[in-house]
Amino acid sequence: SIDGQRLWSSLMAMAEIGATPNGGSNRLALTPEDTAGRQQLIEWCANIGCHVRSDAVGNLFFRRPGARDNLEPAAVGSHLDTQPKGGRFDGVLGVLAGLEVFRTLHDQQIVTERPLELIVWTNEEGSRFAPAMVASGTYAGVFTVDETLARQDEQGISFGQALDETGMKGSLPIGEPRLASFLELHIEQGPVLEEEGLDIGVVTGVQGMRWFDLTIEGSAAHAGTTPMAYRHDALAAAARLIDRLYAIAATDTSGDSKVTFGCLEIDTPSRNVIPAQVTMTVDLRHVHDDQLDALEARFYSELDALVETFGVVITPQRLWSSPVVAFNDQCIASIEQATRARSITYRRMLSGAGHDAVYVSRVAPTAMIFIPCRDGISHNEAEYSTPEQCALGTQVLCDALLHNAND
Amino acid sequence: SIDGQRLWSSLMAMAEIGATPNGGSNRLALTPEDTAGRQQLIEWCANIGCHVRSDAVGNLFFRRPGARDNLEPAAVGSHLDTQPKGGRFDGVLGVLAGLEVFRTLHDQQIVTERPLELIVWTNEEGSRFAPAMVASGTYAGVFTVDETLARQDEQGISFGQALDETGMKGSLPIGEPRLASFLELHIEQGPVLEEEGLDIGVVTGVQGMRWFDLTIEGSAAHAGTTPMAYRHDALAAAARLIDRLYAIAATDTSGDSKVTFGCLEIDTPSRNVIPAQVTMTVDLRHVHDDQLDALEARFYSELDALVETFGVVITPQRLWSSPVVAFNDQCIASIEQATRARSITYRRMLSGAGHDAVYVSRVAPTAMIFIPCRDGISHNEAEYSTPEQCALGTQVLCDALLHNAND
Ligand SMILES: NC(=O)NCCC(=O)O
Ligand SMILES: NC(=O)NCCC(=O)O
Repeated sequence: SIDGQRLWSSLMAMAEIGATPNGGSNRLALTPEDTAGRQQLIEWCANIGCHVRSDAVGNLFFRRPGARDNLEPAAVGSHLDTQPKGGRFDGVLGVLAGLEVFRTLHDQQIVTERPLELIVWTNEEGSRFAPAMVASGTYAGVFTVDETLARQDEQGISFGQALDETGMKGSLPIGEPRLASFLELHIEQGPVLEEEGLDIGVVTGVQGMRWFDLTIEGSAAHAGTTPMAYRHDALAAAARLIDRLYAIAATDTSGDSKVTFGCLEIDTPSRNVIPAQVTMTVDLRHVHDDQLDALEARFYSELDALVETFGVVITPQRLWSSPVVAFNDQCIASIEQATRARSITYRRMLSGAGHDAVYVSRVAPTAMIFIPCRDGISHNEAEYSTPEQCALGTQVLCDALLHNAND
Repeated sequence: SIDGQRLWSSLMAMAEIGATPNGGSNRLALTPEDTAGRQQLIEWCANIGCHVRSDAVGNLFFRRPGARDNLEPAAVGSHLDTQPKGGRFDGVLGVLAGLEVFRTLHDQQIVTERPLELIVWTNEEGSRFAPAMVASGTYAGVFTVDETLARQDEQGISFGQALDETGMKGSLPIGEPRLASFLELHIEQGPVLEEEGLDIGVVTGVQGMRWFDLTIEGSAAHAGTTPMAYRHDALAAAARLIDRLYAIAATDTSGDSKVTFGCLEIDTPSRNVIPAQVTMTVDLRHVHDDQLDALEARFYSELDALVETFGVVITPQRLWSSPVVAFNDQCIASIEQATRARSITYRRMLSGAGHDAVYVSRVAPTAMIFIPCRDGISHNEAEYSTPEQCALGTQVLCDALLHNAND
């Protein structure tokens, strides 16, 4: 059995690194805070004899030897980076649960058949460098190393520059080590498990998601003298877009269409100037790729309508598309079995959030385990799962990992 | 006759101070650029023997002696501060037209009965320090000096600190000198004169305006996992507000209701986080105070609807109200007469923009002169009036001022 108390202590200690005023964490990818969090993990792992290797995009790999070290490892992992006002569990749980499993095996001197690998993927959140899961995507060959290193944050700092400053760029060839299996434990980040009173979500796949940057150009004009009918108000056009897409998503009675506008900025804001230029982001999601296509088509036709109505120029850029993913049946079964063996209540479910498991699943058998989180809230400093929920998820992860490592 | 070429040269020289890439100017109030513009004027005035005095809020007064110097002066003036991407004429024309009149009188050695006063009011735009016209309002006793000095910009720098750094705070008692009359020449900043093919607007008053700060608080949540129906999206609420108020203004068939949202900021923006907090500004205007009351009431009831629909908390703060103003009949007549005497086409009109004349009119007989500007565009780097239009307005200003100074 894993040690739930020790797991909780690690979670709380990690949360102190980049702690925010309202009980969350701010460790944006490749910032000094993120690096400090990673250093802490490296130290903890070294204490149980696991040393770190890293690849060209800063993914961290901690190997625990097995009885047959020529076999590909059975892996677990997630990410340590957070949103700017992020929670203490998103990503972190999956990593520190892996640590807890390693510590438990270490204490009990258990040697698995296959070696084990604990992985920390870089920049999962996509908040500093878009898109999300960019480094697990690079590992999986979806993005080239050069592409990834060239990605820029809002300040124009490249992923490559930021990574160089961490000193965590390594020489492990991209795509190595190849994995026999990959399991990721994560908080659900949504309300389903809590509402249904279930302890575990066995995640069978992840919905599709698409990210866009949008620039809307109107014309600056005087707030007091410009007749309403003469305006080319970039912000009014943006407002119409948001309101229309919310309405369109609401007409999907399945509730599966999701639209979010996380960033919006006026170029040169002034109280009495009609906004000339707005830049904003758009996030579209759906559990079916064809319906996501339809949602995207509606989005483009709304843009056309805005051009017509507001006399603005709109430049949309689709910067990311992640199709719907189905996880590996055997990995799903190993989790389900672990859950049943301990009479833990569970359901199968899809993930609404993207995870590193999405890209890893392209190159290795993969599945995920969810635990409930309070009020389904995530990407929020108030994010919370109980020590018991974290421990239970970690136990299931441990059992399924041992199954994968010994079969 | 005034010298149109010389006037134009002054306008273009002033525009170089804080020049922006697309042909405008950026001299936000009490910045080094604004101070440099004022220094330039001080030098030009000194060259014709007019020396500057200033009051506790940095208003600049240039006196030209008259035959009967114990009489209150006949005054002209406007402002030199601009929007962050402002034009070359808004405010500047009224000041440099006054300079051109003084230069003309100097060259022709004309001595008026009353002394003349050229005034530069501080922070007219309201872009750096809200509200607009705050220093002419202080001169007129609408705001106390302490209130005005305590106003803060976005960075938390106070008007008082910024003024101290300019070295232009003076000892002239607030409200002095008292004025026998005040005339302000300005570009129309709207499309009416150009559309009607008229050369001059004789401004009989200014519409009412109200400024608000608004904070909308929802909750941060995950873009991919949070069902649309569970969200408390502060940005979606802001978008609905903008769209609804635009629609309400559009139903006013007179076209006299104006609503503008010049600033909008998300607290901690991230692509895949539902915005938790939005701060924004609201500018409401109408030519009738009672209908402005009604518009404001509609605005508040829309806020109530947002609270209901989006489950957000909204904190509105009304930070400025400037009632509808009617200018002085004799001053209006003096302009109309000057216009007729030279067979210049004109119409009477209201101003949609606020001007320092609004507050000065509370303590001295006041009126304004408008000239057309291209496409009615202002608060935009592309703002433009021709040299001929500027010269014609300045001639009318000169003639009306001489009338006021010699009657
Ligand atoms: N798990 C998680 O929050 N990932 C960020 C990527 C996304 O927006 O879904
Ligand atoms: N004239 C001018 O642009 N004044 C600024 C105040 C306003 O917003 O009307």
